[in-house]
Amino acid sequence: MPQSLSGTLHDGYHTLLQRVYFEHTDFSGIVYHARYLNFLERGRTDYVRLLDIHHNELADGAHGENLAFAVFRMELDFKAAARIDDVLKITTRQGELKGPRLTFNQKITRGDTLIVQAKVGVVLINEEGKPRRFPRAMVKALGL
Amino acid sequence: MPQSLSGTLHDGYHTLLQRVYFEHTDFSGIVYHARYLNFLERGRTDYVRLLDIHHNELADGAHGENLAFAVFRMELDFKAAARIDDVLKITTRQGELKGPRLTFNQKITRGDTLIVQAKVGVVLINEEGKPRRFPRAMVKALGL
Amino acid sequence: MPQSLSGTLHDGYHTLLQRVYFEHTDFSGIVYHARYLNFLERGRTDYVRLLDIHHNELADGAHGENLAFAVFRMELDFKAAARIDDVLKITTRQGELKGPRLTFNQKITRGDTLIVQAKVGVVLINEEGKPRRFPRAMVKALGL
Amino acid sequence: MPQSLSGTLHDGYHTLLQRVYFEHTDFSGIVYHARYLNFLERGRTDYVRLLDIHHNELADGAHGENLAFAVFRMELDFKAAARIDDVLKITTRQGELKGPRLTFNQKITRGDTLIVQAKVGVVLINEEGKPRRFPRAMVKALGL
Repeated sequence: MPQSLSGTLHDGYHTLLQRVYFEHTDFSGIVYHARYLNFLERGRTDYVRLLDIHHNELADGAHGENLAFAVFRMELDFKAAARIDDVLKITTRQGELKGPRLTFNQKITRGDTLIVQAKVGVVLINEEGKPRRFPRAMVKALGL
Repeated sequence: MPQSLSGTLHDGYHTLLQRVYFEHTDFSGIVYHARYLNFLERGRTDYVRLLDIHHNELADGAHGENLAFAVFRMELDFKAAARIDDVLKITTRQGELKGPRLTFNQKITRGDTLIVQAKVGVVLINEEGKPRRFPRAMVKALGL
Repeated sequence: MPQSLSGTLHDGYHTLLQRVYFEHTDFSGIVYHARYLNFLERGRTDYVRLLDIHHNELADGAHGENLAFAVFRMELDFKAAARIDDVLKITTRQGELKGPRLTFNQKITRGDTLIVQAKVGVVLINEEGKPRRFPRAMVKALGL
Repeated sequence: MPQSLSGTLHDGYHTLLQRVYFEHTDFSGIVYHARYLNFLERGRTDYVRLLDIHHNELADGAHGENLAFAVFRMELDFKAAARIDDVLKITTRQGELKGPRLTFNQKITRGDTLIVQAKVGVVLINEEGKPRRFPRAMVKALGL
C-alpha cells in the first residue's frame, strides 16, 4: 500500500492512510476513542502541509506573528470499532471559513466501513493565545 | 490539595482534581486538545467507581456478559488553554438514559476559568461490540 | 486512599499513587509499556515540585535562562504487568549528580509486586537544547 | 517521500519513515521522550509484519495459544531532539534469541543525526502473561 508519507491531495479534499498500532488500542480490544483525534489531527496537518502550510514555519513567524493551529470545537460520532493492524483512511475536507474560524469535515474509514465522523473547528492563535485571521495566502491555498 | 485518589462524590455529580504534566502539553506551549479526553474519561470512570461500578469487574462478567464502556458521541468546546503544572477540576454529571445510551455532561475548569465543556454519550458493549442495556443495579446507582 | 495531589515527600525519596485508566492499557489486556514512562515522569516532577522546583517557573526563567528537564538515558526493566483499575505506587529516589547529569532511581509497585524498575538520567536544557548546570538552590533542595 | 505503509525490508534489518505530529511534542518545544517508544514499537511491528507475523493473528491463536509481544527490558539513549514536522527514520535490526527472549537493536535518525539509540528485549506471552518460546516459523522468518 504505497502512498506519500503525507497522504494524497485530491480536488477539494485529502486522504491519508494510517495503521493501527499497539499504542492506539485499549484493554477492551479496540482502538481507544481519544486516539482517533490523533489520526484526525494528522489528516488536517498533512492536508495543509500539501498546500505548503507548515507548523514549524507558522511557529517561526513565516506569516508575521508566531502562530499555531488550535481546535476550538469538535463533534465526533464513533460508528464502528477499529482494531490492531487495521489500515484506516482519514479523509479531510475543508468546510467554511467564518472570520477566524475554519471548519473541517473529516471521516475515518476502513474499507467501506465508517469508523468515525467528525466536524472540527480550528483557529490560528498567536503566542498569547489570541485568534488571528488566516493569512491570505493560506485562505487562497485552501480554496476558500 | 488532598483528595481521595478517585475524587469526590457529590449529590448528583462528581469532581476530580488532575494535574497537567509534560505528557499533556504540545510544542505550542499548551495542553494538546486530545489529552482532555483522557481527563474526561478519568472523571467518568472515577464517578462510576465511587458508585461501585468497576471496569475490571465489568470485563470479568460481574453483570452477566463481559462488558466495557464505549463512547459513541462527543461534543467538545475548547474554551481556554491549560498549561504545564495547572491543577484542573473535572466535573461529571450524568444526564439521561435513553435505551442503552447514557449521556454525561462534563466540564474541565481551572479555578473560575472554564477550559473544556463536553457532552459525552456512552454505551456498554459486550465482547462482540454489541450495545447492552445498563444493568439494573447500575441504573439505580446512577440515580436514573 | 487519600494523598496530596503531588504525592508524599519522605527522607530522601518521594512516593506517588496513580491509578491505571483505559488510556494506559492496550489490546493485550495490560498496561502498554510506554505508558509507564508517563507515570515515572509524574513521580520525578512531583518530587521536585515538593522541593519547590516548578516546570512553569523554570520555563519562565526563574533560574536565569529558560530551562526545561530533558531525559538523556533510561534503563527500564518491566517485571510484571499492571491492569485496568490498579493503583500503582511510583517511588523516586535521586541518585547522583555528575556535572550537569542527574540520575533518578525509580520503581513502580502494586502492593508488594514490583512492576517496573527504572534508572533515569536527566539534564536541564536551555531553549537551544544545551545542557546547563543545575542551579545551586536546586542542588541544595535535592540534598546533593 | 513514498514508502510502503509498513516500511522497507532490507537484508537483516527494516526501516520505517514516520512524521512528527503535534501529539508527539511537549511544551519544551521538542518531542516528549516517551513518544519515541511508540515509534520504536511501530518499527518492530512493521518489521515482523513484513516477515508475515501479525499481531491480530497471534492474538487469535494462529500459532497455537493466543499470544502477544511484551517488552521486558529497554535501554534508551536520547542523543538529540526531534521537532514538529521532522521526518524520522526508524531502523530495526534483530539481535539474538536466548530462550524465549529476543533482542532488537533500534535507532531513530533524522538525516545523519542520531536521535535515539535503543536496545529492546521482547518476549511472547500467552493470556496468563507467561513467556512462550517463539514459534519455529517465526524464528525462521527472523533468520535466527
